[in-house]
Amino acid sequence: MAKAAVIGGSGYTGAELLRLLAHHPDIEVVQVTAATNAGATVTDLYPSLGPAYDGVRFEPFSTESLSAGLDLAFVALPHGESQRHASPLIEACAHVVDIGADFRLPAAAYATWYGTGHEAPELLGQFSYGLPELFRDEIRAFPHVANPGCYPTAAILSLAPLLALGLAEPTGIVVDAVSGISGRGRSLTEENLFSEANENVSAYGLLDHRHTAEMEMALSAVAGTAAQVVFTPHVAPMTRGILATCYARPAASGLSSAGLLDHYRDFYSGEPFVRAVADPPPTKATAGANTFLVTPRFDPRTGTIVVVGALDNLVKGASGQAIQNANLLLDLAETTGLTDLGIMP
Amino acid sequence: MAKAAVIGGSGYTGAELLRLLAHHPDIEVVQVTAATNAGATVTDLYPSLGPAYDGVRFEPFSTESLSAGLDLAFVALPHGESQRHASPLIEACAHVVDIGADFRLPAAAYATWYGTGHEAPELLGQFSYGLPELFRDEIRAFPHVANPGCYPTAAILSLAPLLALGLAEPTGIVVDAVSGISGRGRSLTEENLFSEANENVSAYGLLDHRHTAEMEMALSAVAGTAAQVVFTPHVAPMTRGILATCYARPAASGLSSAGLLDHYRDFYSGEPFVRAVADPPPTKATAGANTFLVTPRFDPRTGTIVVVGALDNLVKGASGQAIQNANLLLDLAETTGLTDLGIMP
Amino acid sequence: MAKAAVIGGSGYTGAELLRLLAHHPDIEVVQVTAATNAGATVTDLYPSLGPAYDGVRFEPFSTESLSAGLDLAFVALPHGESQRHASPLIEACAHVVDIGADFRLPAAAYATWYGTGHEAPELLGQFSYGLPELFRDEIRAFPHVANPGCYPTAAILSLAPLLALGLAEPTGIVVDAVSGISGRGRSLTEENLFSEANENVSAYGLLDHRHTAEMEMALSAVAGTAAQVVFTPHVAPMTRGILATCYARPAASGLSSAGLLDHYRDFYSGEPFVRAVADPPPTKATAGANTFLVTPRFDPRTGTIVVVGALDNLVKGASGQAIQNANLLLDLAETTGLTDLGIMP
Amino acid sequence: MAKAAVIGGSGYTGAELLRLLAHHPDIEVVQVTAATNAGATVTDLYPSLGPAYDGVRFEPFSTESLSAGLDLAFVALPHGESQRHASPLIEACAHVVDIGADFRLPAAAYATWYGTGHEAPELLGQFSYGLPELFRDEIRAFPHVANPGCYPTAAILSLAPLLALGLAEPTGIVVDAVSGISGRGRSLTEENLFSEANENVSAYGLLDHRHTAEMEMALSAVAGTAAQVVFTPHVAPMTRGILATCYARPAASGLSSAGLLDHYRDFYSGEPFVRAVADPPPTKATAGANTFLVTPRFDPRTGTIVVVGALDNLVKGASGQAIQNANLLLDLAETTGLTDLGIMP
Repeated sequence: MAKAAVIGGSGYTGAELLRLLAHHPDIEVVQVTAATNAGATVTDLYPSLGPAYDGVRFEPFSTESLSAGLDLAFVALPHGESQRHASPLIEACAHVVDIGADFRLPAAAYATWYGTGHEAPELLGQFSYGLPELFRDEIRAFPHVANPGCYPTAAILSLAPLLALGLAEPTGIVVDAVSGISGRGRSLTEENLFSEANENVSAYGLLDHRHTAEMEMALSAVAGTAAQVVFTPHVAPMTRGILATCYARPAASGLSSAGLLDHYRDFYSGEPFVRAVADPPPTKATAGANTFLVTPRFDPRTGTIVVVGALDNLVKGASGQAIQNANLLLDLAETTGLTDLGIMP
Repeated sequence: MAKAAVIGGSGYTGAELLRLLAHHPDIEVVQVTAATNAGATVTDLYPSLGPAYDGVRFEPFSTESLSAGLDLAFVALPHGESQRHASPLIEACAHVVDIGADFRLPAAAYATWYGTGHEAPELLGQFSYGLPELFRDEIRAFPHVANPGCYPTAAILSLAPLLALGLAEPTGIVVDAVSGISGRGRSLTEENLFSEANENVSAYGLLDHRHTAEMEMALSAVAGTAAQVVFTPHVAPMTRGILATCYARPAASGLSSAGLLDHYRDFYSGEPFVRAVADPPPTKATAGANTFLVTPRFDPRTGTIVVVGALDNLVKGASGQAIQNANLLLDLAETTGLTDLGIMP
Repeated sequence: MAKAAVIGGSGYTGAELLRLLAHHPDIEVVQVTAATNAGATVTDLYPSLGPAYDGVRFEPFSTESLSAGLDLAFVALPHGESQRHASPLIEACAHVVDIGADFRLPAAAYATWYGTGHEAPELLGQFSYGLPELFRDEIRAFPHVANPGCYPTAAILSLAPLLALGLAEPTGIVVDAVSGISGRGRSLTEENLFSEANENVSAYGLLDHRHTAEMEMALSAVAGTAAQVVFTPHVAPMTRGILATCYARPAASGLSSAGLLDHYRDFYSGEPFVRAVADPPPTKATAGANTFLVTPRFDPRTGTIVVVGALDNLVKGASGQAIQNANLLLDLAETTGLTDLGIMP
Repeated sequence: MAKAAVIGGSGYTGAELLRLLAHHPDIEVVQVTAATNAGATVTDLYPSLGPAYDGVRFEPFSTESLSAGLDLAFVALPHGESQRHASPLIEACAHVVDIGADFRLPAAAYATWYGTGHEAPELLGQFSYGLPELFRDEIRAFPHVANPGCYPTAAILSLAPLLALGLAEPTGIVVDAVSGISGRGRSLTEENLFSEANENVSAYGLLDHRHTAEMEMALSAVAGTAAQVVFTPHVAPMTRGILATCYARPAASGLSSAGLLDHYRDFYSGEPFVRAVADPPPTKATAGANTFLVTPRFDPRTGTIVVVGALDNLVKGASGQAIQNANLLLDLAETTGLTDLGIMP
């Protein structure tokens, strides 16, 4: 039984980690930390978790107070915090799975998109980019994992077959995505209030959302050449779910929707958590599950490839994928502790 | 591995049975039937279930076409259908768990509340009322189970400690409950349309909702005397969840909120799926889980006991409880295949 | 054209005042103040109001900086603030309509329910309780109005005919009400976050919600004897709307649902904003309108009167009623600037 | 006072017409028809409309039973019905505003996109395409109006300035739009059920949604050359609102986001219902209002123009715009009976 800490466990990705790990047969949560919520019990914030974490309190985080004998740390800290604490965490744990953005990009790209230099660039080389369907070997080869962002997971898995197989141009790509509100976390801002977010769809982060950099990095790796994406995130009045609708220009002739579906089924053949499907996937089909659903189309009229992908931003887009990565790091079956069945209705 | 059929599997309780049973280690679904949806695949209706039921089709239901060797049938048919088909079902399966209302009430009460005579009164004696926390011994002693209604599960578990311990009067009880829309099933009516149900709360079934009879039957059994309830159901714009707020008059002196909480904790001590809690329970804490959460209060100012109970109407209020009952019938651990952790946020 | 200030205009009741007053032919908003949002434009917070308030900024509030020549001030300050600022406001404006709770209760009741002494008890006598359907003459006779709370408006209008006509006992009353999230205002608390409030119903303020005092005060006035209420508020995942389901014991014989409906229609005959209806009213029928819908029932089986009332908590439950009161104070037609048609779907 | 009939008044666009026309000083509804709902009262279906339509019943529609002396008919019939009934309607009324799709496209385009020949092609020439901001003169010059679709209104108004001013290429345009569920009408289909639509975003009509033809027709007219659009509609769990996010390639150099905003402000200068704004517009800002909000961006990194537009699909996207058109036909002030203020929160 691997011993794990959840660092920054009071946010939504932390809570989802706690929920999923409670069902995990080979990982045991031995410590949970929080910042402003330190001192509260897990149940105070998440009565849903009472039966599994009765009496467990969020401890204040300090590298000195980490439990002894940790095999693994899941880190769900606000942006910028991980790089500050990474060095002692790495010393204390054989494996770190960082759910934040701090170790996903090379130092230069990080500086460009985050507007500030990376504080621990010497550690970047120890982290793989944890998208198992594309980078499983690297994940196994590196000690630590930078867990992908929720939008990038959806966009990259939607577009990777096209670029890997040379079916689409790597530039001129549009990613138009809609997320549930939980993607913005548990922060107290007016836009996250029920009365403002309900009965409302809006775009945000026009042109410069930081997740663009991740999409371009991973798609470039898949394409073997520089990919370029314009990305528009939106929020819709639901708690969970991301739907990414992606547009690309064909780089091959003879495309058809049926042919693309075959390509996608081949490409993801054997993947336990990815399903290429014929009908447009509803986000609800993935609720609570580590599943990614995707359908491709080719429009001969306008010469456009359209791909629609769906996932639960807190599971395959965050905490579920983190456990999938942890399973790889710990040499467990990749599906351990995870479900592929969504909750519907 | 017990072989089970899900009869009437295309509605929401059927879908939830399929989801939960896919994770059950000791029950295998070998047949799924539907009426109007016969011929469709499970995935057509519930893409969430694709990974577990790929290619499985809803068969038209007939007692002749039941699979051989069934150990168990879960029946999720519209009201009135079960009693019509019960006789051959009982012959074909050692155990029937009927999620509908047909076998919950004695014949006389059935006729009163449903406005028509029961069509199979001779079979009523073979069904226990499947609320394990109160009637576990009967469930084990009878071959078949009438699974309680969603509202009655919430109301009865909220009030049972008061009546069992003689703390409240068995008459003058008010049950005011709010349900998610899935409680009205998958039927195509205007009131179930998103655009009508969203941003809307309304009451319905004023004074004569049929679940009243179940509440009175079970609470009378617990009290040892006739209980009487006025029940007002409401719908709120959420998919799942029931919150029952119950009002009763004290039958003992010296009551206090703290004392009542102690009584509730004692009464439900050892129950795996019931938790008496100090704070008002949010329905969301039970989403997807077989959990019932309850908190009692005593108001010395007005001399009123107030109890608030929460559950997921499709799980503890229907399909989860059906599996809990099946586990009892099959002599499995009562919690097999069920989770007590809600999905939150 | 009466000149009005909206004091504390950046919250939801303030925004709704601004929206409604923009359509009012006889009241002109000449000043809008806010505390933490001072300096922002109205449109920054409410882009919905752009066409009417382009460039208008929330000013910081001080009694010194009140516009000259104000005829009227609508005050939508947090609890406790009105009583601190009432004296200069009253000097500056002929009429104050206070949407907060500060001037609704007599000093003694205020101290009991709010746990602290009133800071301006000498001014209480200048405020009427602004429920026009019951206290229209008082509203016209006093210079200022304490606008009722949202829950009390729903509960009192639901129960008043019973108590005025001696049909129900004034004690043993239960008010079980469900509100949209906007009823808790624009405050940044976790419980108001979309991801926590969505797909969730919960009770709060068990036994001691302060609105109980208002209900008892007004119902006692109507009954001519002390009324007593146990009140349980709930929140449901919608932005607007209150549904109050009220239970009372009969004080007269020969009651019937049809007879009660006649009594309600008589009682509210001629009221422009109250309609007694045969079917349970959905809250959505009142969205954006100053309308209160109500239906009564009598259950001969249990001897219980059940009354269900619906309104929009931001309109008839707050800002619409404030304008209705202002119209009375200014001798305008009571319906000026208000609609009785809800937005549905 | 113009006398109007609402033909097909029991759906959501019909209900919204009834709501808005109740406040219109110069148009009086003298007849309301419905098909399956004939015989019901308006209030049975929409208790929100009770105060204005008490006792009014939906009549069965037949051209023989049209009221005498009609000045105007608003037609909100299912697709294909208008063309069948247009001839007698045109004889009976000086002006028809058809909210359906039957008279929007030329006969050839109609046959292509609707898969069937038009049944009244000889009448097409009497209908203008009713987007006042672009085609006001034509609307005034023709007797009848084909009211635009909801998605086309959003997409065309978002893109028209770019094409009119030669700033964007007319081909390679992507329109990715999200609608509230009311856009699919009041039809009883599983996908419209609350429990399926809630907590769910999905795409539909991939590649071949019929509204594409309208967008291309109107944008071609604006551009003076053939425009081509790939359009992906989505539904999100809200009742009202459309957000269109549009992507186009620049056809001019020196573009910037600030410059585009200036262009949009100039282009829509003086328009009472269109506002070019700096921040991404939330759909909620337009709820219940006839307002269209739009913001443009230019991304120099990828060379992409992104435009985001928001409206209420039942108002500016349907019934509000129909009244705007009727005002033009009747020589009334264009804003009569319409509000530009959204309801928020």
